[in-house]
Amino acid sequence: MKAQMEYGPVCPIPISEYPQVLMAHGGGGKLMHDLIENMFVPAFHNPLLGERHDGAVFNVGTARLAFTTDSYVVKPIFFPGGDIGSLAVNGTVNDLAMCGARPLYLSAGFILEEGMETEKLWQIVRSMQRAAEEAGVALVTGDTKVVDRGKGDEIFINTAGVGVIEHDLKINPKQVRPGDAVILSGDIGRHGIAIMAAREGLEFESAIESDCAPLNSLVRNLIDAGLDIHCMRDLTRGGLASALVEIAESSGHQIFIEETKISVRDDVQGACEILGFDPMYLANEGRFVLFLPEAQTERALAVMNAHLHGAGAARIGKVTDESFGVILKSRIGANRIVDMFTGEQLPRIC
Amino acid sequence: MKAQMEYGPVCPIPISEYPQVLMAHGGGGKLMHDLIENMFVPAFHNPLLGERHDGAVFNVGTARLAFTTDSYVVKPIFFPGGDIGSLAVNGTVNDLAMCGARPLYLSAGFILEEGMETEKLWQIVRSMQRAAEEAGVALVTGDTKVVDRGKGDEIFINTAGVGVIEHDLKINPKQVRPGDAVILSGDIGRHGIAIMAAREGLEFESAIESDCAPLNSLVRNLIDAGLDIHCMRDLTRGGLASALVEIAESSGHQIFIEETKISVRDDVQGACEILGFDPMYLANEGRFVLFLPEAQTERALAVMNAHLHGAGAARIGKVTDESFGVILKSRIGANRIVDMFTGEQLPRIC
Repeated sequence: MKAQMEYGPVCPIPISEYPQVLMAHGGGGKLMHDLIENMFVPAFHNPLLGERHDGAVFNVGTARLAFTTDSYVVKPIFFPGGDIGSLAVNGTVNDLAMCGARPLYLSAGFILEEGMETEKLWQIVRSMQRAAEEAGVALVTGDTKVVDRGKGDEIFINTAGVGVIEHDLKINPKQVRPGDAVILSGDIGRHGIAIMAAREGLEFESAIESDCAPLNSLVRNLIDAGLDIHCMRDLTRGGLASALVEIAESSGHQIFIEETKISVRDDVQGACEILGFDPMYLANEGRFVLFLPEAQTERALAVMNAHLHGAGAARIGKVTDESFGVILKSRIGANRIVDMFTGEQLPRIC
Repeated sequence: MKAQMEYGPVCPIPISEYPQVLMAHGGGGKLMHDLIENMFVPAFHNPLLGERHDGAVFNVGTARLAFTTDSYVVKPIFFPGGDIGSLAVNGTVNDLAMCGARPLYLSAGFILEEGMETEKLWQIVRSMQRAAEEAGVALVTGDTKVVDRGKGDEIFINTAGVGVIEHDLKINPKQVRPGDAVILSGDIGRHGIAIMAAREGLEFESAIESDCAPLNSLVRNLIDAGLDIHCMRDLTRGGLASALVEIAESSGHQIFIEETKISVRDDVQGACEILGFDPMYLANEGRFVLFLPEAQTERALAVMNAHLHGAGAARIGKVTDESFGVILKSRIGANRIVDMFTGEQLPRIC
């Protein structure tokens, strides 16, 4: 009843402007951001949601827990480097890792379309189990629904995850402060291009595979190294640009990054030029940004570079005490403001 | 890799028999049961899934937790007595309660179809918040995806839930034993008929509303009364019949129930007769069965009858030491075996 009184019975998204849900409302960009800020956060108002983090963190008894969820609607369901099953496991494992939690248990909710090939479902289920074993988590509870032909798209998977936080760090966007270094864990854009290529039947000289990977063991190494981590965020829908804009907004500080420090593989860059995409906005499923005190940069990079999923990690910028926003120093030396896209360059990327 | 070695790369559901997913695979009956037993349980093999319970129960630190998930694809999304939002909250609250847990936190994953009216989404979101407040849980983390027009059906919602178990009871189907009383918390079949009526535009003399309700406060009263609860199961897809068959199978004992003890409202019974449905298989969203020692029956009924959502509770049968299965003593005095339906009388009921 409180929500109703405080926010009124009127829909807070201007109906005249957006009377219907658009693809962009799920794209990880500005419209999705508006939907969350104007509808979900006020309706479900509570301090945990207010953290604007990849998951909720709370205590039960003596345990400090993280809890997160994502639905996966990627199309096509099989793509170079992964499938909807491995994505559904790694995506939720990574959201828990970004909270500084050790992922423990996952749930799986399947929404199947009548007529889906049973063999495909089995391939996906096996892929989920392999991904769970690699990440060291167990799929412990689930649900299956089937919808009529033409009312779904083969398979949608929701995973939720529970993890435990075993240290005293507070890791969330509000901990980011001027003087922090911004570290990117590797090259960007491969997931987006891999999906695009699979969807459109494009062929590049070398196969571009999704970077889909579990980040929890790398994050664990960072925590075990005693680093004073302020924030981590994995780069999914909306890419590096959207993640940084969100963190700048939540923290109230400016993030300054340099384009020349951001690693993009030549084949990904080439594909972007042909297709007219900006790698800054392309989705990734095994990359994250890390914020921690400048003085710990070298130690953090040493830990990351020693790990398979952080081999290409580099410092790409810093947090400044200017007013908030994201500034990119481009290859030619000019500074420009980085903003969110309205939606996403590619819908249904995850 | 273990799963692959143990179960082989071959899909364990006979492809020749079911090369494609059928509506019945999500119906709560025999085919869904087979899909879970032959595909999900072996692939994700772990002791927690093996419990065949409404949720997984595990310890983190000193806390004993329950974790569960359900996706909701009910059609229509608004129906007498509720909507997909209240259903998504109450359904997951009830699954936690059935584990004997106090529900704490819920996640919400939305899969929206492009073109859905924003105003409808807002009504559903508000309904979720009202249901969460009534049940005393917080919606703390979420996700939104949008799929292309014609690839979804307005809205699907997944909720997962975390609850805490604050007592030493073990509550699951394996605790059911001969001599236990079987108690049903109220009249059955209203949710199924309410959905059917809304879907088909049927009108009855009196409006039949869904029984959709949170069961956690009633369960809490039962636990606080110190009753030795062996098992609880809410009656959703597949109805009372499927819930009892599953419990009989998991426990290895026979359940004997009497039709005359099972409460069905006259208007629901009438609708069933017109439509050719059996109330034993109709879905409910605010009803459960309780198994506990016969000697505690009167105390349990006193607690239940004092609560809004257990006012119609009654003892409907007992667990015997015969070989397993469910036996119904019919109105005319004959015993018959109760089995699962292949699918569900009504698809997309929840």
